[in-house]
Amino acid sequence: MNTSAAGLKQIIQLLSEIYSSLEPEEILYQSLKGIVSLIGCEAGSIWELSEEDKKLFFRAIVGSGSETLRGKTLNLGEGIAGSVAVSGKPRVIDDVRKSSEWNPDFDKVSSFRTENLLTFPLKSRGKVIGVIQLLNKEGGFRSHDIELIENLSGPVAMALENARLYLFQKRLFKETALALATAIDKRDPYTGGHTKRVLEYSRGIGEILEIGGNDLERLELAAILHDIGKIGIPDDILRKKGSLTEEERRFIEKHPEIGAEIVEGIPGTETLVDGIRYHHERCDGSGYPQGLMCKEIPIFARIIAVADVYDALTTERPYKKALSPQEALGYLKDREGHKFWKDAVQALSSLLTR
Amino acid sequence: MNTSAAGLKQIIQLLSEIYSSLEPEEILYQSLKGIVSLIGCEAGSIWELSEEDKKLFFRAIVGSGSETLRGKTLNLGEGIAGSVAVSGKPRVIDDVRKSSEWNPDFDKVSSFRTENLLTFPLKSRGKVIGVIQLLNKEGGFRSHDIELIENLSGPVAMALENARLYLFQKRLFKETALALATAIDKRDPYTGGHTKRVLEYSRGIGEILEIGGNDLERLELAAILHDIGKIGIPDDILRKKGSLTEEERRFIEKHPEIGAEIVEGIPGTETLVDGIRYHHERCDGSGYPQGLMCKEIPIFARIIAVADVYDALTTERPYKKALSPQEALGYLKDREGHKFWKDAVQALSSLLTR
Repeated sequence: MNTSAAGLKQIIQLLSEIYSSLEPEEILYQSLKGIVSLIGCEAGSIWELSEEDKKLFFRAIVGSGSETLRGKTLNLGEGIAGSVAVSGKPRVIDDVRKSSEWNPDFDKVSSFRTENLLTFPLKSRGKVIGVIQLLNKEGGFRSHDIELIENLSGPVAMALENARLYLFQKRLFKETALALATAIDKRDPYTGGHTKRVLEYSRGIGEILEIGGNDLERLELAAILHDIGKIGIPDDILRKKGSLTEEERRFIEKHPEIGAEIVEGIPGTETLVDGIRYHHERCDGSGYPQGLMCKEIPIFARIIAVADVYDALTTERPYKKALSPQEALGYLKDREGHKFWKDAVQALSSLLTR
Repeated sequence: MNTSAAGLKQIIQLLSEIYSSLEPEEILYQSLKGIVSLIGCEAGSIWELSEEDKKLFFRAIVGSGSETLRGKTLNLGEGIAGSVAVSGKPRVIDDVRKSSEWNPDFDKVSSFRTENLLTFPLKSRGKVIGVIQLLNKEGGFRSHDIELIENLSGPVAMALENARLYLFQKRLFKETALALATAIDKRDPYTGGHTKRVLEYSRGIGEILEIGGNDLERLELAAILHDIGKIGIPDDILRKKGSLTEEERRFIEKHPEIGAEIVEGIPGTETLVDGIRYHHERCDGSGYPQGLMCKEIPIFARIIAVADVYDALTTERPYKKALSPQEALGYLKDREGHKFWKDAVQALSSLLTR
């Protein structure tokens, strides 16, 4: 084991880096990079085991052309990595050309020349969750290399597990919120699938406007929940077939406020609540509930407004036909800067035409 | 820095332990335990900085009586820990009795005799988030001790940050789901606060029945969402003041199935969906939708059934008065084993009488 002070620092550094992320891809890449550097070999790759598919999926590579391996899979038991995934035991091969199990195809596609290798199982709670393969160490891989990876693979697997739990939790939240919002949506017989489409347009616009990370997640949630206030509108107004009275119209126009109040007060929902409350505001102050001007309207609400109107225009309602995407975009472009935020309209336009 | 192979293994072990948890309390305790053991001192404590309150809150202790410090806080700038939280720089005191800043009260209440100490700031992304205080190292704390903690405090802070993000995400989900379910609940004018109370009774019963961790969280979510299917019941049935026709009753009895279908198919919601679908089943097979017998009814549904009926009995409806808690418990006990799961009724009984 590498026991110098520098080695120790490097190990702590590696562990800090992998734990500083809750993104599985980033953790895999940083782990591999750190391990290749600590071991002092030429290249390495990580393969993740999918229990369901009974396959290893290529996930990260260091020191060799990554593009060529993207999308590659290995069956359990196939080749050296596949056999280590089954046995759960590390294997060293000092000269791959003397091994019948070595598949030279990988070298051919990546124009890399593998000499020797160490393949190591990645385990979480005793179960194999993937395989690390290290290539070309001068003088070959030795038992102290195995010992070092053995010590590190536990923390790597743990970091991965935590990241997966976190991702799982976020997905569960988003999907449950979408399911509930869709159920609320369904009370209005004219808007089938509206919530999901507004989510997709809003996410697309947000990505083009380079809204990232947590903010993009909040935008998505705001888009999912933008119409939940309709839960407060009685059936006889929401489902009315004729035209609405002034009073009924005013009632319906309460839905952004009702929706905002449902989620308000939950820590961490501030921007989300704004997105719900102001998604019917218009840049020239002609919107509701507050008649805000463009600069006063929070960005999430400006984006959702464009997504919302585009979807309303392009779907059929009992009182109107659906516009074509071109017609609807034209409608929005005629009003950009005036009614709708120009950046969001342009982003939607490039989203739809790419 | 401790650079022996044994030391390295111990460090990796420590980091693995703190990262194996996503519970802040557990991370703090394991970190402190590991650091006290690595440094080889007698005792230690961790204090967490609350930005909002401008205070340090006592969070964990090793090697001395913990009970006496529980609930303790320190103002920023107060004493040695308080000054390190402000300066962000570690401090060593070789003889506390010669220091004017040392507060001997802590020793008095804990009957511990502090000789020397090292106080170290815990930082995340450059910001102080807490303080580690280590007590009594033979021969005093030296610069290599500071260096070791310096290397370790980054990973500790990171683990804490991840755990907080995870907890935050889970809370956000639970509170948003509760807000949406409560909004759905409100369409039925007779059931104000029903969802929240069913959540509290179900959680209480679950805890007494020793349902823990992930399962308890799923039970809570099932309780929150148990009546969301009512979104599919039209206003004129849900809000009808007179008695229901046979057809209307059958419509209302669809709500568990409608609710289950809303969330069904989202990965990770299987037990939750069961809790929603079967919360109107009864042990003798007289419930709906499937008329299952007790053993066939999933546990979450059996628990929610008891919580649900207890809340319905103890709240006033237009057509009936509220029963007292004793009367309602009596009603359930008369039917335990027969209509309701005995264990859940008994757990509710001890929950209400403790």
